Amino acid sequence: MDFDDIVRTRRSVHQYTDEPIDQETLEAIFETASLAPSGYNLQPWEFLVIGEEKAKANLAEVAYGQEHVTDAAVAVVILGTTDLTAHADAVFDDWLAKEYIPDEEVKTALLENVEAMNEMPEDERRIWTTRSSALAAMTLIYAAWDHGVASCPMEGFDPAGLVETFEIPDGYEPVMLVTLGYPAEDASDIENTRKGRRPVDEFVHYESFEPAPKTSLEVPGEDGD
Amino acid sequence: MDFDDIVRTRRSVHQYTDEPIDQETLEAIFETASLAPSGYNLQPWEFLVIGEEKAKANLAEVAYGQEHVTDAAVAVVILGTTDLTAHADAVFDDWLAKEYIPDEEVKTALLENVEAMNEMPEDERRIWTTRSSALAAMTLIYAAWDHGVASCPMEGFDPAGLVETFEIPDGYEPVMLVTLGYPAEDASDIENTRKGRRPVDEFVHYESFEPAPKTSLEVPGEDGD
Repeated sequence: MDFDDIVRTRRSVHQYTDEPIDQETLEAIFETASLAPSGYNLQPWEFLVIGEEKAKANLAEVAYGQEHVTDAAVAVVILGTTDLTAHADAVFDDWLAKEYIPDEEVKTALLENVEAMNEMPEDERRIWTTRSSALAAMTLIYAAWDHGVASCPMEGFDPAGLVETFEIPDGYEPVMLVTLGYPAEDASDIENTRKGRRPVDEFVHYESFEPAPKTSLEVPGEDGD
Repeated sequence: MDFDDIVRTRRSVHQYTDEPIDQETLEAIFETASLAPSGYNLQPWEFLVIGEEKAKANLAEVAYGQEHVTDAAVAVVILGTTDLTAHADAVFDDWLAKEYIPDEEVKTALLENVEAMNEMPEDERRIWTTRSSALAAMTLIYAAWDHGVASCPMEGFDPAGLVETFEIPDGYEPVMLVTLGYPAEDASDIENTRKGRRPVDEFVHYESFEPAPKTSLEVPGEDGD
């Protein structure tokens, strides 16, 4: 689908059909998501895909009972490693093989950079992994819609409960949930007028930053703006 | 452009032509970025667009001298407010007007939720704003490429230096930089084989999470996988 159409027709959808998403489609969506950029190409994301009924019920429970978690075909828990070094060696070997860097010496220097960054306090590493993992999550959401699969990104869940329920080991940040499923025919999220957006001239600032005193919302492309 | 083509041909580009990006194109890119989803549709992002030569030089300085900051037509500083309530009232008025919620009582309850979340420690609010602002940044990057404008997302900069240099008021997190410009004809980032990605079967986990012991990289769609 045309990218602009994807962005303009995507909605956060809460109502799904019972149709499952076949494995081939899921894998294609995940493969596209893998092409998201990340700092140093370190790709800190892990996708935990929950599709079994009992597991979806457990996930809904840590998501404050939100029903679209169980109604969706699957819910993807986006996790991010807080260990910056997790994939660094393989990543820089790849750079070396493809001549993004000239030699082992540069690779060693890059590894040392990443190891030094890994000394950041835990909160900074949580921010680091949230940043890149959200880039992959956004790509996942658009890739899903490109296959006709609707989604709902969710940050409303109890991270400690999630970690306990799904036995997530230390060192992984639960970044967000993304439910995936085919949209119900009469899904109100699709039928309704799109939720408003802050206008470009409010959130874009040229050369210097002065926040707008008050927010106004509009729907780009739908109200003549 | 077709979404799949955008994702597959996008690269993080460091070499740009001298061609400026006209205002209309920039605004179209920003308008598309505004359609990104965010928690409660709170849209915490602010884009500070730096195009003047002196300002780009100042930005490059806080970005450890990385030359593509000055070579790009503009660099966008993605900022995120750490005040969850900043746009809440207008957002929930919009929900009310469009019948996403039935009445003022529900609006009041939603506002109270957001105000309660705003009591989170600052680090949690920084993670919150990073999450949604990165969703907008990812949309910005794809929207730019849809207009033929290459980009490079950057997290390598000194946030305190940036805040000081550009007089960013308290309460805004510098989430990332995104350079924008038309790619140089022989840009090596485009000519080179794409940097490898962790394969789907490594980062996707069905029903339970067990991290892969070791990373291997491949280029999806280019090596027969």
